[in-house]
Parts: sequence; structure tokens; C-alpha cells
Amino acid sequence: MSQFLSDNAAAVHPRVWDAMRAADEADAPYDNDALSQRLDEAFGAIFGYEVAVLWAATGTAANCLALATMCPPHGGVVCHREAHIEVDEAGAPGFYLHGAKLLLAEGEGAKLTPDAVRAVIDPIRDDVHQVQPHAVSVTQASEYGQSYRPAELAALGALARERSLGFHVDGARFGNAVAFLGCSPAEAAGPCDALSFGMVKNGAMSAEAIVFRDADAAALARYRRKRAGHLQSKGRFLAAQLLAMLEGDLWLANARAANAAAAEIAGACGDRLMHPVEANELFVRLSAVEREVLRAQGFGFYDWGADAARFVTAWNTRDGDARALASAIANL
Amino acid sequence: MSQFLSDNAAAVHPRVWDAMRAADEADAPYDNDALSQRLDEAFGAIFGYEVAVLWAATGTAANCLALATMCPPHGGVVCHREAHIEVDEAGAPGFYLHGAKLLLAEGEGAKLTPDAVRAVIDPIRDDVHQVQPHAVSVTQASEYGQSYRPAELAALGALARERSLGFHVDGARFGNAVAFLGCSPAEAAGPCDALSFGMVKNGAMSAEAIVFRDADAAALARYRRKRAGHLQSKGRFLAAQLLAMLEGDLWLANARAANAAAAEIAGACGDRLMHPVEANELFVRLSAVEREVLRAQGFGFYDWGADAARFVTAWNTRDGDARALASAIANL
Amino acid sequence: MSQFLSDNAAAVHPRVWDAMRAADEADAPYDNDALSQRLDEAFGAIFGYEVAVLWAATGTAANCLALATMCPPHGGVVCHREAHIEVDEAGAPGFYLHGAKLLLAEGEGAKLTPDAVRAVIDPIRDDVHQVQPHAVSVTQASEYGQSYRPAELAALGALARERSLGFHVDGARFGNAVAFLGCSPAEAAGPCDALSFGMVKNGAMSAEAIVFRDADAAALARYRRKRAGHLQSKGRFLAAQLLAMLEGDLWLANARAANAAAAEIAGACGDRLMHPVEANELFVRLSAVEREVLRAQGFGFYDWGADAARFVTAWNTRDGDARALASAIANL
Amino acid sequence: MSQFLSDNAAAVHPRVWDAMRAADEADAPYDNDALSQRLDEAFGAIFGYEVAVLWAATGTAANCLALATMCPPHGGVVCHREAHIEVDEAGAPGFYLHGAKLLLAEGEGAKLTPDAVRAVIDPIRDDVHQVQPHAVSVTQASEYGQSYRPAELAALGALARERSLGFHVDGARFGNAVAFLGCSPAEAAGPCDALSFGMVKNGAMSAEAIVFRDADAAALARYRRKRAGHLQSKGRFLAAQLLAMLEGDLWLANARAANAAAAEIAGACGDRLMHPVEANELFVRLSAVEREVLRAQGFGFYDWGADAARFVTAWNTRDGDARALASAIANL
Repeated sequence: MSQFLSDNAAAVHPRVWDAMRAADEADAPYDNDALSQRLDEAFGAIFGYEVAVLWAATGTAANCLALATMCPPHGGVVCHREAHIEVDEAGAPGFYLHGAKLLLAEGEGAKLTPDAVRAVIDPIRDDVHQVQPHAVSVTQASEYGQSYRPAELAALGALARERSLGFHVDGARFGNAVAFLGCSPAEAAGPCDALSFGMVKNGAMSAEAIVFRDADAAALARYRRKRAGHLQSKGRFLAAQLLAMLEGDLWLANARAANAAAAEIAGACGDRLMHPVEANELFVRLSAVEREVLRAQGFGFYDWGADAARFVTAWNTRDGDARALASAIANL
Repeated sequence: MSQFLSDNAAAVHPRVWDAMRAADEADAPYDNDALSQRLDEAFGAIFGYEVAVLWAATGTAANCLALATMCPPHGGVVCHREAHIEVDEAGAPGFYLHGAKLLLAEGEGAKLTPDAVRAVIDPIRDDVHQVQPHAVSVTQASEYGQSYRPAELAALGALARERSLGFHVDGARFGNAVAFLGCSPAEAAGPCDALSFGMVKNGAMSAEAIVFRDADAAALARYRRKRAGHLQSKGRFLAAQLLAMLEGDLWLANARAANAAAAEIAGACGDRLMHPVEANELFVRLSAVEREVLRAQGFGFYDWGADAARFVTAWNTRDGDARALASAIANL
Repeated sequence: MSQFLSDNAAAVHPRVWDAMRAADEADAPYDNDALSQRLDEAFGAIFGYEVAVLWAATGTAANCLALATMCPPHGGVVCHREAHIEVDEAGAPGFYLHGAKLLLAEGEGAKLTPDAVRAVIDPIRDDVHQVQPHAVSVTQASEYGQSYRPAELAALGALARERSLGFHVDGARFGNAVAFLGCSPAEAAGPCDALSFGMVKNGAMSAEAIVFRDADAAALARYRRKRAGHLQSKGRFLAAQLLAMLEGDLWLANARAANAAAAEIAGACGDRLMHPVEANELFVRLSAVEREVLRAQGFGFYDWGADAARFVTAWNTRDGDARALASAIANL
Repeated sequence: MSQFLSDNAAAVHPRVWDAMRAADEADAPYDNDALSQRLDEAFGAIFGYEVAVLWAATGTAANCLALATMCPPHGGVVCHREAHIEVDEAGAPGFYLHGAKLLLAEGEGAKLTPDAVRAVIDPIRDDVHQVQPHAVSVTQASEYGQSYRPAELAALGALARERSLGFHVDGARFGNAVAFLGCSPAEAAGPCDALSFGMVKNGAMSAEAIVFRDADAAALARYRRKRAGHLQSKGRFLAAQLLAMLEGDLWLANARAANAAAAEIAGACGDRLMHPVEANELFVRLSAVEREVLRAQGFGFYDWGADAARFVTAWNTRDGDARALASAIANL
């Protein structure tokens, strides 16, 4: 019944399990183990530039540890009004950034544009009475499953650079964006300073990667991670998950599988779709009665307001389930 | 070579692995899954009173989430000068408690006594210029492997109640204390408001339990846990670890094994012991040359100042290793 | 040239000066002096119920110290999108409330209504992922010079009570609201838990009053005030200002004078007024050319967007100045 | 009766009053007024180098705003165990520095030495588990009225520079130190990055100066000052106080007067003195009976533990009072 509720509680991929088991034997604690030490190189290889990588158990921690390197306690971070960091992280940015403020921008499909960012920051008086912007955060793919094109990220990055703003990408579903865009990870991350590269929704158990361009920022984040209680002593098990996800591009294969299932369902939705499907989430106009009909057939999903539903596919969504849902929607 | 460095990176117990694997199938996210829902009852059964239990990935998070329910940002927490929360948590209490202060007490073997607590709090003027105490935190077993007797905890608890202080027990090695004391978990926890029941050092992978007496405090901690990025979406894997540790008292068996190994080594140390061995840690007077001799034989451990070493045994310390170390020390 | 820029830098009333000079002789420090000790009774007399009163040097400090008694670090405070605490206090609420969030509501004239508050809080899911509301803050008179009627405050207070929310009134221009409404201070404060009773804009130099209904909240605020560096050692000079303002209802006379000046100008504005004038602020539609004309005649004021200006009168605005401005606007 | 309790509530110097009255006419708000704009130059003139100066109403605010420019939330500030910031500021550093930690050093007379600082920072492991030092703070004159010699400050400054630590001087009684040392203000401040130059205890009403060497640090502190509610809208009255104190070296004359009174009393104390008198504070061994005798003669002062008393002179201590106390002590 829960198969389209979310990807965030899906099973763990067998290769991730295997890698964790293989890491069982004691190694140095925290991130001093051999696996954690390999992360920079392993992620560097897929991005094509040098990076410094930290693991963290959740996307919320990853996002906040990244943002804390960009914005002082008295500053602000521009994000979309419906960004996960604003809506669904319990005020974690306020905690990790010590009271810094999220400055909320508008934008179709929960995506920011340079104009939307400027609409927020241009009216801010450059004086001590108003919170000054220090960073921009976007979500790739967005909270509505929209993927930023490389050119869109480049434009946002250019604006950030011009205004001396840090640039953060919340990549809770980064793999799904890359899979949809068909571009390189570097293109899908754009010119960001830090990327929260989500793995948990995509086959891992409890490990996200924070990918920093700047080693100094990563060094700072290491202090903050420990201070936040996120430096696990058996950190090798988190590193093992990340490395397993990178190995043979498992992250990309899993994301493609989830996207394909979403595309299959999308094909049956027609005008019902509220947003184009550019990742593994579908927002579908469905009346209460229609939702009832679907649930009666065993499909699990969340209501999205009064007249719609959200369906999320995962790396392990079964072909049959996706097909069955597509057909059930088509038959409504 | 690392076998006596610490218990904090030891292998995961096979029954914990099994329980995690058994939890693979998707369930409700966060702590809405069936396993997380069983924690209150399962821990209540071993304590003999009602408790509300949260999982957290690290002891630092567990300690700080517990303390944050007891002490406001402008307050203070009395702890030992060598308490882990003071020395080794990177200022996490200052972060989680929003600037609250640790008020440092003295005490043999890193243990607090009512007198030591009074020596800290009695001189504090009851005015707005000085940080007022709001809680006491002790470590069971202490940072020097000393176990509080039930009567000692009762006395501290009585003082805490008398002064309206919250009472927290950092039980990173709680199992080892219970195993040493031969008393019930409830006796070893004393009249505390919250216990960080450590499992990671004792056979789990990444799950500690925060055991609250008061359901309201636990409810508060749930908000703070999410806000700290510690609410994992696949939380069922943390609950699975905790339940596996409780099942058949695995936590106690593991702690006994670690303690037995420590006792075997202790038997060879005689006057070299800086502290009686009441858990699984040994602090042993050893000259630099002697330490060199031991290391040359393949033993791994940390120096403890200039003239001593710390040895820690774990649930899976091999009999042969403990015997070999005991004999090597005896032969020095 | 600066006469209509703001009331926030106006001269100090002679009776306030006199009271300060009379307080010169040393007395007990902080708020232990005889004058500070009289505040509760003096304010209680004008409100008609028991209150506990703290002085603070600024409205920002007063607002934040009040709010910090109502909202925990993980909570939220509902306020208007254009509230001073949101727009012009440099993120001070995030600082004093340790990362708590302002939840922004809409409303004509920067005023909240129960419906506007419900529109913010009703969609908040009652779970740990979303910041829960803990307080409501309104500004009396509002940032657009609008005064809440007693019935409006009663309705907001009823909602706050129903939802267990604290209720704060930012009374930076509270005197002006009372003067406009012609009601009692208690009616103009409504059923609030704490009022920031502004005096600085109304003839004092550097003293605002935080008026608490609940003595426990005031006691908490005393710790927070010291911790924020706002407990001045020569606090008697702040108490002296407040008492002088209360003496013979100087605060009310001053506010009436400012309001009268504003009313005189308003009479000349006709349709140019963006908001009815219910205090001492005027928001007047004026083209860039018109503003230029006024400035050329020596009038000082702030632009308000591209097509308007803000004029603020003060307790000491000269009749002639107000008349001259009215006539200049009429002649445009 | 209160004449030797403290200098912190003494009367305001007539020239300070005059300067405040002269500033009555409205000027630009906050620190945009003509007087505030003169501070950098006026303080620069007495220090002999360029400085950037902010006013703040209290020493606690001044200290914390200064320290917040030197130490991140996860860092530590080395100070003496009996430093005012540790003992008497209600945890304000933890608030302003967002949980940063005070690292406590020992030292005769509440003074730090390079050795004492090293004894604190050298044992700190350079890893993420321990709070790393980022600044040193000393009090000039110290909490026991001891004045650092220029060479002592130079040595501390050299250590700070060597270890990349910021260097802060809490100069609550800076004038008294300069007066005692007979050196220049620059020598008495040493190579510090920021000095809290106290004026309130020395004849002002409610204005301290934060003197920064680095304009960028001052710019940062301006945001933090506003965010802390310390940016008063009628800031010209604080600037007026500071300028009046500088004018004709009033600060120095006042400090000399206070020191002279202390010296007169010290002359009668002989072996009773617990510390040499190097400013305007005396710590005098006096039995409970002796203290009773003095109080019966009308002298006001604080007990200092069970067997001593603290006497503080002020800029306006009357010759007769000092002589009378000296003679009363001599006659015990």
C-alpha cells in the first residue's frame, strides 16, 4: 500500500548492503577509516574536478552543514518559498546557522531564476537594519520534480558570483535530475560551492554526501558536523554506502529506474499533470473520489491539497506496480 | 593493531546485522515504522517503568537532545571537568543548548558526588549576573571506567530534586556499568530524567537510545531531533538495532564479555592501575619504553599522558588477545 | 530638513531631562535602584492590573526579550510580512529566540486579523517536520500607522488563547494608538501577554518598557536581558525616563501632539493618502517631481517606493512646520 | 553608605551631562549623526593609530560584540577563570558567540600570562572533537585591580599572533590602568584587535566604546550590534558621552582621581591588602567583626568571601570619605 508514498523509506540496494557488510571489521573511528578517506577521490572522479566530501546521515544535516559554511548568523539565504529547507526541515537552517534567515523567492515549479532571486535581494537596503543575503540555495530536482538545466544553473551561479553569494544545491534527488537531463554530474550541479548529493532516497540506507568545491569550507564543516553530533564513530559504514552507490554508477542506474517508472505513469496522466515529470515525482490532479478509487485498488500515495495527489517512484519500484498505476489512472 | 584502541569502532554484532536486514522492506518513514513504535515498550520492559524512547545516531546527539529538555539557553549544566560532553563533543552542548554553559565539578575517577555538585552550585549567586544551574549530568560508567553505585545515584538524584535540577545520565557505556554492578538497569540509571543508553560501543552500528521518564520531555526532544537533522527517514534501521540489542539481553551479554576481557587484563596490572576497573576501560601506568615494548608486540592502544596508557576492550575482544596483553604486561 | 523623517531621533522632553538629572546621585546598580523598583506599580496604575515591567534601551531589545518568553528555539512567531521585527530588526528575533522563525501573514495596513493568522497556522502540519507556531505579534499602531481597535485585539487574543499562542504587542508607537483610539491603555493593549511600550519615539531618550502580565515571564526576561548586555548598571536613568513619561500622562500628551500634527497634514492630503491616518505617520502618494518640490521647500521625509513618501510627526513637531507642510502639499 | 560598593553606579560627570544636553536637537538616527561620525577620529587621536569605534550601552555588550568578530560559534576564547565575561555576564559570550566556549586559564590576580594561556591551549588536540581556541581575552585592569604592563601585553599579543588567535582587551577600567601605568593608551591596550574601552564606571552614563583596529571587524560588529538591539536610535547621546570623556582627557583625570582615592586607602591597609593596588579597587583582609565596625561607621562595601572586603573608589569619591575610611581601617 505504501509503494508510491515516497522514495525516502525504500529498501536498501543489495550492493549497498554488501558494501556495508564488507566494512564490518574494525577500522579507525569517525572519518579516519580507509573508506572515508577515499571519498574525495571517488566523487572527484565523477565530477571531474577536485572536491572535498563529507558524509552525513540525513539531507537536512547535509544541507545545513553546507549552508553554515556560506552564511553567518546575521545573514540570509535565498531559497524558494517551497524549498525543503524552508518547509520541511523543522527550522534546521535557523538552528545550524544560528538564527540566519531564509529569504523566500517565488518561482514556477519550486525553481528559482535569476530574476526571482533579484526580486528578493534587490529591495534589501544595504544597511545594518536588514538581513543581508549571503547565499542562494536551489533544489535539484526541485520539490516539484523539476530539473534545472545546466544553463539555468550557470545563470544562477553567475548572479551568485556577481553578488558575492554562496551557491548551494540541495540534491536530495540529484541522481534523478542527472538521469533526466542526460548530462554530466558537473553540469547538473552547476557552478555551486556545495552540493548535498542525496543517496538515501536512491538506494542507500543512511548516508548523504556533502560535496564541497573548497577544501577550507569542508574543513569548517567537519568541526560543525562533530558539534552537531553527526560524526558517527563507525563512519566507515556511511562511507561504504556512498562508495557502493558510486561504484559502477549505481546511483545513476537507480535514478534511471525510478525515473522510468515515473515516466510510465506520467504517460497515463495527460492533462492531469500539474508539472512536467522531470525526475521521479508526479503531481497529479485527482478528485477525492478518484483518489478513493485508486486507494481501493491498493495504491498508496499522499494527497496534495484538495484536488491532487503526489506519487513518488523509487529505485526499486516494480514494473508491474508502475504499469498497474498507469492503467488505473487511465481508467478513471 | 587497533584491538585495544577503543570500543567505538568495533564490528557490528551478527544479530544486529540480522535485525537490520530483516527491516529492509519499506515501512513508514522517520519513526512511524513498526519497529520504532515498539521502543517505548521494549525499553520499559527492562527498566520496569514507563519510558519514552528516541533513537539517535550518536552519543553526542543523544546527550545533547536529552540535556536540551532540561536546561534553557541561559542556564547551566553541572558535569565533571573530564566529562565527555565537556571534553570530547566539540562544544555540542553549547550548540544544542544555545549557549548554555557547562559548570565544571571535580571528582575522583571522573565521578560526581553530591558534595562536588554543591561545591559548584552553592557559590553561584542567585541573581541574573551568574548562570544558574538547571541540570546535572553524570556518566555511567564514567570516563575513567568507574561505575556509580545505585546509592550514589540516589544521592545525586535527591540533590537534583532538592535543587530543581534535571538529572541526565550519559550512558555511553551503560551496559558495562550494569554488567559490573550486577544490578538492574533501573538501579544503574538511578532516578534520572533521561538516560543516553549507548549501544554503538556495545555491538550496534549507529543507534543510541535516549530514554526519557517524562513523555513531554520526549515530545520536545522529537522536535529538536528533527531540527538537528537526526530524524533519519529510514529510521527503522536504527530501531532494529536497538531492538536487537535488547532482545535476549544481548546488550548485557556483550557488556559482560567486554568487562571480562578487561578484568583479565586488569589481573595482570596490579599497582599499575590508575583506577579500579569497573567496566571495560583500563588506565595503566606504563613508561614510554614499556608502551613501546607492547606496541612492538602488536598491541594497539592510546597513550594517556606521558606515563600511562588506556586500553579498551569491546564486546568482541578475543580471549586470546586479552590473555596475550595480560601476559605481555605481566612480563614487562 | 529632517523634521518629518522620523520620530525616532527627536529631542528629549524637558521633563525627561529633569527626571534624569534628578537621578544623578548614586543609587543601587542595575535595576535595584529605587526608581526601577517603582516601575511595576507605576505602570500597573495606568493599566489597571498587575504588571511586571523591565526597561530596555531599544524597541528591538524590548520586542525580542518579550518574544523569547513565549517561543522556544524550535518554534515560530506569527507576524505581519511588513512587521518591524521581520523587516527592520536585522534578524534580531532569530538571534534572541535562537533560530525560531517568523511566520509571515498578510493584512491590510500591516495589521493582522484572526483570519490572516489562521491562514498561516492552519496549513502547518502538526508534526515535527514543520515549525509550529508559539506566539503572535502585532504592532500597535501598525507599521502603516493603523491602530487596532480593542475588539480587533480581543479577537486576536481569543484566537491566541484558543491555539495556546503567546500574544505580544510591539508598541513602538503605543502612545499614538491610545491617543488616536481615545481608549484606555489596557484596551489598546488588548489581552496581550507582553507589550513593548515605546517611549523613545515619544519624548524619552533611551528607555522602552516591557510590560508583562505574568511575573514569571518577567523573571525569565530579566535573565535574558542581562545575558543580552542590556542590564545597564546605571539603570536608574532608564527608570527615571519611564517614570517621567508616565508622570501626569506625559506620554499621552506627547502622543496627542504628534497625532494632531499628523492630522493637520492629513487634512491636506485627500486622496493622496494610502492609509487612513490613525497615529503619527502619513503615507502619501507623491510623484518624484512633487517630492522634489517639497524638498526644495525644505521639508525632510523618506521616499516610500517610487510614487509615495512617508512623513512622521513627533511630540515636538512645531505647529508651523505641520501647517507649512500641509499647505505645501495642498499647493502641489 | 554605598560610597565604596562600586564605581558602576556613580554619578555622571557634569561635562558629560553638558555634552548630552548639547546633543538634544534631532540629528540623523542610529550612528549616522555628526557625533557618532567623529568617534573614529577622536579615539584615533588618543591611540595614535587608525581605529574604528562603535558605542554600546554596556561593557557586556561591548565585550561580546568584540569577541564575536574573533571567534566562530564552534570556537573557544581563552580567558581567566575569574574574568568578568566568565563570572558576571550571565553567559552573554555563549549567547553572542552562539555557543562558543570560554576556555579558562589560571593566573595570579586574575591576570593571564603567556604560560597560563599555553597551559590551556597546548593540551587541546588539533582535531574536531575538541573546541579549538580562536581568541584570548584579558581584562585591563584585571578583576583584582591589577594592571598589565605594556611588556606583558606585548608578550600575550605575540603569542596570540603566533597561534592565530584574536586578542581582546576588556577595558571596563581601562582608564584606571592607564592612570596607574603612566603610559600611553596604546601601550596600555597592547597589540589587541579590539578594546572595550569602559567609560560608564569612569563618569559616563551609558556609553562604552568598542575600539577596533580592523575596519572590517568593526563593520561586522555593526550588523551584530543592530541584531542585538544595541543600535539606539538616539545614538548621538552615546557618542556625546564618549566625546565628552575624551575631551581634555577627562577619562584620564577621572581615573586618576579614583586611583588617588584608592591609593590613600591602600596606605592604611598594609598587610591587609590581598593584591597590590594598581587601579581603583582594594581587596582587604578584614574579619567579620572588623567589617561590622566599619559598617557601623557608615562605610559601604561588599564582602569578599568570609575574611575580606572589596572597596571600589570612583571618579567622584570625596577626599574626606577616602581619608575617613583609611583612618577607620588604620584604627581597627
